[in-house]
Amino acid sequence: MKAELLMIGSELVSGQKLDTNGQWLARRLGDLGIPVRFTTLLGDDPEDNYQAFRQALGRSDLLITSGGLGPTQDDLTRESLARAAGVELVEDAESLAVIAAFFKRRNRPMTERNRVQALFPQGAEPVANRLGTAPGIWLQAGNCTAVCLPGVPYELKAMFDEEVAPRLRARGLASGVVVHKVVNLFGKGESEVEAMAFDLTARGRVPEVGITASDATISFRVSAQGRDEAEAMVAMEPTLAIIRERFREWIVGEDNVDVTQALVDELQKSRRTLATAESCTGGLIAERLTSIPGVSAVYAGGVVTYWEQSKTALLGVGAEVIARHGVVSGEVARGMAAGVRHALGTDLAISVTGVAGPDGGTEEVPVGRVHVGLATAEGVESKELNMGSDLPRAVIQSRAAKHAMNWARRYLRGEAGMG
Amino acid sequence: MKAELLMIGSELVSGQKLDTNGQWLARRLGDLGIPVRFTTLLGDDPEDNYQAFRQALGRSDLLITSGGLGPTQDDLTRESLARAAGVELVEDAESLAVIAAFFKRRNRPMTERNRVQALFPQGAEPVANRLGTAPGIWLQAGNCTAVCLPGVPYELKAMFDEEVAPRLRARGLASGVVVHKVVNLFGKGESEVEAMAFDLTARGRVPEVGITASDATISFRVSAQGRDEAEAMVAMEPTLAIIRERFREWIVGEDNVDVTQALVDELQKSRRTLATAESCTGGLIAERLTSIPGVSAVYAGGVVTYWEQSKTALLGVGAEVIARHGVVSGEVARGMAAGVRHALGTDLAISVTGVAGPDGGTEEVPVGRVHVGLATAEGVESKELNMGSDLPRAVIQSRAAKHAMNWARRYLRGEAGMG
Repeated sequence: MKAELLMIGSELVSGQKLDTNGQWLARRLGDLGIPVRFTTLLGDDPEDNYQAFRQALGRSDLLITSGGLGPTQDDLTRESLARAAGVELVEDAESLAVIAAFFKRRNRPMTERNRVQALFPQGAEPVANRLGTAPGIWLQAGNCTAVCLPGVPYELKAMFDEEVAPRLRARGLASGVVVHKVVNLFGKGESEVEAMAFDLTARGRVPEVGITASDATISFRVSAQGRDEAEAMVAMEPTLAIIRERFREWIVGEDNVDVTQALVDELQKSRRTLATAESCTGGLIAERLTSIPGVSAVYAGGVVTYWEQSKTALLGVGAEVIARHGVVSGEVARGMAAGVRHALGTDLAISVTGVAGPDGGTEEVPVGRVHVGLATAEGVESKELNMGSDLPRAVIQSRAAKHAMNWARRYLRGEAGMG
Repeated sequence: MKAELLMIGSELVSGQKLDTNGQWLARRLGDLGIPVRFTTLLGDDPEDNYQAFRQALGRSDLLITSGGLGPTQDDLTRESLARAAGVELVEDAESLAVIAAFFKRRNRPMTERNRVQALFPQGAEPVANRLGTAPGIWLQAGNCTAVCLPGVPYELKAMFDEEVAPRLRARGLASGVVVHKVVNLFGKGESEVEAMAFDLTARGRVPEVGITASDATISFRVSAQGRDEAEAMVAMEPTLAIIRERFREWIVGEDNVDVTQALVDELQKSRRTLATAESCTGGLIAERLTSIPGVSAVYAGGVVTYWEQSKTALLGVGAEVIARHGVVSGEVARGMAAGVRHALGTDLAISVTGVAGPDGGTEEVPVGRVHVGLATAEGVESKELNMGSDLPRAVIQSRAAKHAMNWARRYLRGEAGMG
């Protein structure tokens, strides 16, 4: 089984935009036991497109393309595929109706150009796109199965998972599976984790274990192969057991469960509620929490007190406390947490005040200094963090947000006290 | 001048690692007036490598490759290039001495395998690599100039800038420069903008104009060539003038100036201050504003009122107003904006309340319904948006945030009234 990808768009091949769809597709295909042999980025030149399609149909068993399905003159995918496969383009009445309905639902006028999105190479099947106007194309061309998807990442991903992968399986094109399991750690440095995991990450070990780090979250990724998911899971289990045992203290969750999701899970499990008061993180904690559907059951909301006086106006932090201890201080962090907990009547509240930089640091309070606060029925406490003044602003903000959320999470689990 | 890139590495084509070298090289070549026509990612199969090199040497004037120059058996670049060019590999004594010196400098033993890194196709010149062991390869093969660089990003970048670009210029392969200018629009649908820009985006038009869309921000990208930057800018100016004139109403900024940055610029210019009150956007506006260093001069902070009662507790929105009109209503949006403006004493305040989904929609108030509010010294107004209930939560949140910020921006510019 030889697969290849064509990622179509002048913005990709010119480097204006980084191609991430190709990586995503290659991983998904790998998980279906279908290795990708070539990924080609190309622009919107008709002859280049035709040559690339012809070559791919001739040398690969499976071709997946991204982009070029829009309504503009630059969108050449349907024509290039038809020409390379040696068939005509014909209008599909059903797809035209679906496209018209899409525009109606969004209250937008359908232009004449959008009609071309209902054109398909003779013999092709449409691939439903519930999130956009352009349906995908599935065409058997000689020995090659060609699947054309739009370039908009969320459309492409939904269509691959909901439409393409099931058809590949049903038609016997997917052989075996590779499963991945991710274990996320927080609260321990990357080099310490690496040193502790030397045996696991050795080259050639089966199952394979990789480590990645992102804003102080360290993730192990275990990949195991099998004829089916059950077999791959069996192959993976002993390695997972070692990781869970050895790094227990720092594990926040598995797969997509990061610090934010893990905190929300703990709040839901313990039926407790949270409020937030943020200064240097500027709403990042609130934004992450509210990206989780249904979080309103446990998250009341919060305040972003960017100005000093807003800490007084919204949270009742005394102006004299700020004047005496400085706005980046444990006293202010505690006042913020206690203030928002009181205002919103929640069980818990967390707060952050600090210097995210790049400016605003002093000798006494350098960039990277952050105080996080936690208020509960037991009282209110704060912790000082010093992250290093050379970190980018976004990294300091992200780490500070995670520290505050992780403290609340560990408190709810009975793993951390107030101090 | 036709250029193409081969990015060699199993970790790239399998999706294990994201290729960023290709994007970087394409941009650098574009700026030298050398457009990239194809970028191909491929693994370490000898036959695939040979075929890819042969095709590239046959169809392109310039080939740049990344990866496959290491000392292991997986490193196939020198052999594939020699075979495709029809020449032998020979040892270069000078390169061997440079490699030996590198190991000595780093106090690392040089293995026998590292000798292969001094092998070059007959007729090739080495390209110096001051940061690593593997020298690059420069070979004229028929009509194609082939340049092979290592895959380590910092080695590749230094070698391209210090060795490759100067040689391309000296040998007359780099013809002038290409400059790019981006114009960002908000507030008009993608297909409507496309329909209005049909003449500009026509294939073959000079300068070239491309359109991209991201969460309702539509961007034009104009690319113009010239012998030098001044000439390219002159070539670009008339096209930019047309875009600025025709789309004036929806332009928020150029290059990196998006809705958020444009709003902050307007606040700074007019010396006015802003506060925010967010419900369904959950802090996204605050988070975006505070990602801009120095924003505290104009942004006071805000509240995230995720619970109904927090709208009352923090903003003084009457419980009876919420009960009568519903929490997603113009009345509540206006109450939130007026409330936070009063609490923080700012010139302006914006607010958002809505249903971001995927759950929580009703027949009366569907997912995608959002009210945005604007409070100023003149009073307080709100607008209703209906984005379509099938959009992902993150897209609804992002668009709602942009709508609110854009309203404030246009108000400050005198382009929008309160209603």
